[in-house]
Amino acid sequence: MSPNRLEAFSDGVFAIVVTILVLDLHVPDPGSGTLGHELLAQWPSYAAYVVSFLTVGIIWINHHAAFGRLRVVDHSILVWNLALLLTVSVLPFTTSLMATYLKQGSGENLAAAIYGASFLLMGGVFVLANHHILFNRRGDLKGPVSDETARQLLVRGALGQIPYLAAVVLAFVSPYATIIICAATAVYYALPVASREAGQSGTTIA
Amino acid sequence: MSPNRLEAFSDGVFAIVVTILVLDLHVPDPGSGTLGHELLAQWPSYAAYVVSFLTVGIIWINHHAAFGRLRVVDHSILVWNLALLLTVSVLPFTTSLMATYLKQGSGENLAAAIYGASFLLMGGVFVLANHHILFNRRGDLKGPVSDETARQLLVRGALGQIPYLAAVVLAFVSPYATIIICAATAVYYALPVASREAGQSGTTIA
Amino acid sequence: MSPNRLEAFSDGVFAIVVTILVLDLHVPDPGSGTLGHELLAQWPSYAAYVVSFLTVGIIWINHHAAFGRLRVVDHSILVWNLALLLTVSVLPFTTSLMATYLKQGSGENLAAAIYGASFLLMGGVFVLANHHILFNRRGDLKGPVSDETARQLLVRGALGQIPYLAAVVLAFVSPYATIIICAATAVYYALPVASREAGQSGTTIA
Amino acid sequence: MSPNRLEAFSDGVFAIVVTILVLDLHVPDPGSGTLGHELLAQWPSYAAYVVSFLTVGIIWINHHAAFGRLRVVDHSILVWNLALLLTVSVLPFTTSLMATYLKQGSGENLAAAIYGASFLLMGGVFVLANHHILFNRRGDLKGPVSDETARQLLVRGALGQIPYLAAVVLAFVSPYATIIICAATAVYYALPVASREAGQSGTTIA
Repeated sequence: MSPNRLEAFSDGVFAIVVTILVLDLHVPDPGSGTLGHELLAQWPSYAAYVVSFLTVGIIWINHHAAFGRLRVVDHSILVWNLALLLTVSVLPFTTSLMATYLKQGSGENLAAAIYGASFLLMGGVFVLANHHILFNRRGDLKGPVSDETARQLLVRGALGQIPYLAAVVLAFVSPYATIIICAATAVYYALPVASREAGQSGTTIA
Repeated sequence: MSPNRLEAFSDGVFAIVVTILVLDLHVPDPGSGTLGHELLAQWPSYAAYVVSFLTVGIIWINHHAAFGRLRVVDHSILVWNLALLLTVSVLPFTTSLMATYLKQGSGENLAAAIYGASFLLMGGVFVLANHHILFNRRGDLKGPVSDETARQLLVRGALGQIPYLAAVVLAFVSPYATIIICAATAVYYALPVASREAGQSGTTIA
Repeated sequence: MSPNRLEAFSDGVFAIVVTILVLDLHVPDPGSGTLGHELLAQWPSYAAYVVSFLTVGIIWINHHAAFGRLRVVDHSILVWNLALLLTVSVLPFTTSLMATYLKQGSGENLAAAIYGASFLLMGGVFVLANHHILFNRRGDLKGPVSDETARQLLVRGALGQIPYLAAVVLAFVSPYATIIICAATAVYYALPVASREAGQSGTTIA
Repeated sequence: MSPNRLEAFSDGVFAIVVTILVLDLHVPDPGSGTLGHELLAQWPSYAAYVVSFLTVGIIWINHHAAFGRLRVVDHSILVWNLALLLTVSVLPFTTSLMATYLKQGSGENLAAAIYGASFLLMGGVFVLANHHILFNRRGDLKGPVSDETARQLLVRGALGQIPYLAAVVLAFVSPYATIIICAATAVYYALPVASREAGQSGTTIA
């Protein structure tokens, strides 16, 4: 299979995931308070929405960099891609979970840990998929990638999971720590500096 | 990255946003009144639906014109595009908010102001993204664009935000003013006259 | 603009519309009766689902035939396409309305009339868009289309609206008439005979 | 019509189906128990989600293999494809049905049988569509396919339906049997062994 259809399908999933995140922004029930007050009380939903949107956006950029190196895709690549998309598709659920329990003020530690863990899982599967591409399917790449470069890409990807690991652990101290770490990670990778560091080897966070 | 995949992803988001707007058209609960009467009482939902649909459709046309000038896209373009899509993705929420409170008859001024503000935000980010494309990434454009043309495009884009600014301010006088201004703006840009004015420099509203 | 991006965006909208129709198939509340009985009671939802799915699928085929004749698309084509997609996007709402009130047994005549009218509106806009393509933008077509062929295409398209007109009118006699007519129309255009009739001028129902 | 647009539309439907499966993962109502306990009680939803996601992913791979053999698509192919997509689109409903009634502990046998039957229906339509492609439209294929190869592909596809048939029958013994069979089938086709068996004739399960 040419990579084009894999990319078209994946782009579809990424686009739908970022767009249906909005379904968790609920219009306040009229009559339960002034609208302004009710909207402000929903700030955890807005925060979780923006963080998840940007994170999926960045993983989309990385997906392109990683799978775009392939000249041809075989069954194993399709299955790794499917596993990655599965972890992406679950984010609207963990985002909604996080937002609901942060507003609630009970169970918020577990909800935040699950939120962070869903990012960690997505990042972890991305690193493994990238490892499979760079080491097991090297003959299928468009251009030559040295062992050195491949190792650097993977190490940088693995290091990129440290914030998410911290976000999971610190969720049990404070769920706000989780959301701040995830937000900072998204902003960091959106800034030009992350791109410059990645240099000519592409923009990979994971 | 070639612009193709950016466009495919963006087209996906635009297509999903216009299509899930329909999820806010609610089938009236049977038994709460005659169906005809119930359906007529929902007119704010229909109005908000059509206005948002057309506005997103027009921003999609403009998105094509603006990002289609690029021969190649770098990290900064991807992030600007992501920011723009974030503002587009939020429209189903603000549309639903507007429709719900217009029907309710309380909080409708704030809801209308937020509705107008979400259009203003989208348009504003579009102008900034377009500025970034035309001035910071001029070397990445497919063809030469003179300073004169670039400035004209941006000025026309910025002027296109004035109705939305008015829609926000007048929301506190009457929410109907907001929806009428937004509707008129959408219709204006859909008419041939807007296209003709844009001349050979493409069809940009923002 | 090349027709490719218009098609990509439109394909996205068609694909989403047919797929979110499923959101109106509701899992029966456990405990309100035996599952088998509850599922059977929902037959109007299944019927409306299948009819709408096939009808949108066929309009997608026709969309391809009609807009695929264009070598290039201008602003007017984009706006006609947007108007057509607006009428397509509203179908999940009218489908849900039809199914809900057919199950309810009150207001079902109006609901069925609206259902039929939404198909008629979609078909009508399609005929107008096709007229615009074949007569106003003839210079933008890929190959020459004679006046004779263009007129035939439009007449066949217009005739294709007669069943939908009948479906609207007969809704006030029986909503079942509406659904049977719409179903028969979808099946007719799915069968090889419709394709054969269309001959070398493409498969257009509208 | 070139196969590209058929693939783009189909990819859209597949991508949306796998992604909206997440809408059936519900955030537990705060206050109805500890969050951890509530989340664990939802395991049937997670199981059904993962099984459906992978199964649709694999049918997507197979869809590519089967329809990718075509050089050109005619009306009959479009209609077969539409029929297949209809059976795919209904899976979020049967998945939700299965998960809801497995949690409930009543009606779970029928729900599981319907779940298995929806996979069987999808697989059956796929085999029929593939038969139509390989035998009726052989002149439209990109390369020559021998009678021998075509028959092998269809036999393997038909054999691939046996697990789903068993899943339907055994649902009346235990709904868990159904989900285990469907899960095992998905995992089997995701593993490299399935791909190797398929050999040079492509990766087809159905």
